Amino acid sequence: MTDDTVHMTLDGLSELSRAVLTRHGLGRRHAEAVTRTIVAGERDGCASHGAYRLIVCVNTLKTGKVVRNADPQIHDAMPALVRVDARGGFAQLAFERGLPVLTKKARTRGIAAMGINNCVHFAALWPEIEAITEQGLVAFACTPSHAWVAPAGGMRPVFGTNPIAFGWPRPDGSPFVFDFATSAVARGEIELHRRAAKPIPEGWGVDAGGNPTTDAKAALDGAMLTFGGHKGSALAAMVELLAGPLIGDLTSAESLALDDGAGSSPIGGEFVLAIDPAGFLGGETEQHIARAETLFDAITGQGARLPSQRRYEARARSLKHGICLPRALHDDLQGLLA
Amino acid sequence: MTDDTVHMTLDGLSELSRAVLTRHGLGRRHAEAVTRTIVAGERDGCASHGAYRLIVCVNTLKTGKVVRNADPQIHDAMPALVRVDARGGFAQLAFERGLPVLTKKARTRGIAAMGINNCVHFAALWPEIEAITEQGLVAFACTPSHAWVAPAGGMRPVFGTNPIAFGWPRPDGSPFVFDFATSAVARGEIELHRRAAKPIPEGWGVDAGGNPTTDAKAALDGAMLTFGGHKGSALAAMVELLAGPLIGDLTSAESLALDDGAGSSPIGGEFVLAIDPAGFLGGETEQHIARAETLFDAITGQGARLPSQRRYEARARSLKHGICLPRALHDDLQGLLA
Repeated sequence: MTDDTVHMTLDGLSELSRAVLTRHGLGRRHAEAVTRTIVAGERDGCASHGAYRLIVCVNTLKTGKVVRNADPQIHDAMPALVRVDARGGFAQLAFERGLPVLTKKARTRGIAAMGINNCVHFAALWPEIEAITEQGLVAFACTPSHAWVAPAGGMRPVFGTNPIAFGWPRPDGSPFVFDFATSAVARGEIELHRRAAKPIPEGWGVDAGGNPTTDAKAALDGAMLTFGGHKGSALAAMVELLAGPLIGDLTSAESLALDDGAGSSPIGGEFVLAIDPAGFLGGETEQHIARAETLFDAITGQGARLPSQRRYEARARSLKHGICLPRALHDDLQGLLA
Repeated sequence: MTDDTVHMTLDGLSELSRAVLTRHGLGRRHAEAVTRTIVAGERDGCASHGAYRLIVCVNTLKTGKVVRNADPQIHDAMPALVRVDARGGFAQLAFERGLPVLTKKARTRGIAAMGINNCVHFAALWPEIEAITEQGLVAFACTPSHAWVAPAGGMRPVFGTNPIAFGWPRPDGSPFVFDFATSAVARGEIELHRRAAKPIPEGWGVDAGGNPTTDAKAALDGAMLTFGGHKGSALAAMVELLAGPLIGDLTSAESLALDDGAGSSPIGGEFVLAIDPAGFLGGETEQHIARAETLFDAITGQGARLPSQRRYEARARSLKHGICLPRALHDDLQGLLA
């Protein structure tokens, strides 16, 4: 801890988060659910999805685009599907309501999918992925965002940053989890370059004419690009389809149109899968889960990292020592209580 | 048609394919199923997955690693899962046997997954994806291969080329389908560079010491890389897990070890998903499927291509005019009849 940082316990941050959110009118149950996500982000060293996100949430609350006391409703359509209508609220409470239905269906049918509809989405997907792997299930999730990203070979935004996340339960310790944007980088990363008047690497964006650019402002005014060329672009389209039309919800273009310049977090849907290994494997589950450990050992044994490894290291530190917020951020959050 | 090519009808190629495969001892029903896949590849202009694959199939048959008359068995484990034991045969017949069970489960439960076990895999995944989208269902499939690809940050092969494929049914015309390797390129592409003594671009592989290399032989002796850095590497791991331990089948490393230098196509499993849009959407299915068309229009309307578009164009030509095989390939195939 230096003069530039403020030390907090995780409980202390939870208390601050709840206070900020309820001060800005968010219902108590939503404030609890959103706080769990934000504290998990800060705990895991994800600065952009931690305490800082409270400012984003408050901005979204101020746009009036989020329903502050939304009561999510569960629709039990098919034996292996569940829909949760978030009714315009933040996604977290809708996910928490739907989770036990999803996992029960996955256990009894072997696989199940959940569509969360009509939610406001500002968070990473890994907290939800981990909530599923904690129950011994394999998890997949994706969600569109706002249309900022051009398809491969194109020049105009169609896709959101469209994250894809996956989780695999491990018998000892933290699950195998990845969660990445299908855009080459986060939009915030390009904005940071613009503020710093620094050029961006090629491959991050194109200008309004569709030409490759290293100018951050030109890319923000033009379009971001996907990671991995036409393969990343194909995955971004898959996210639009699964978490958009398939579940009867908005594409990234429709979400941005609905926002209409208000600057809210994206509004739309989320697609979540849960698979029970025991459904395929029965009495042989343990032995095959152990074979997955051999795969992980072959990766870490050559000095490569598993996705989320840094996050789990940060988590271990935070659980022991608490967290340190930049003083400026801490002061901004205190200011939101006024 | 020039002197260097031989014109054939699609029926003619089917006949040749069946003759070659049965001449080398493949059972009749397998020869029919494999022929459907090979003719589809040639028809769609996929030279490496078309008639040329007959040579690969024959080589695999000669290794003795494939069961020539395998009778695939269906195991109906859970309401939304089906396993098909290919019993050591080529994957095609096992897929065809399992398909009606998978699609029926997807329709009655909303989503279903199929694990194909103990199969020999040499083909692209899109013919199977299209067999599912033809029935109005959304499809996903993946399969490991042989361990040739290093994880991000590593230097030793762990992953196969591990393709991922996805399909979305479209009311008019061909489905939205992608099917790509999670390796930066196909292994055959590096082999072609080695034969031609041409350098490979950076990002395709590392040498045995884990250093980036532009030497094709050094990369083949070292390890291939995934596309898209750590994101592609994470996806390759997901494929290993879903189509390996989750369904009780081999990882790419285990498949290569089992091959033990014989040079057979990979042996192991395949993971397939089918989702019924009507399960989520009920009476609103048509309207939301139409919204997906708006997404596709936004892509093609700016001059970008949809994945598979070239393939569908080749298909239209082949259905009208038949196909032209390189004479050398045609002669090689005739030679396999001797």
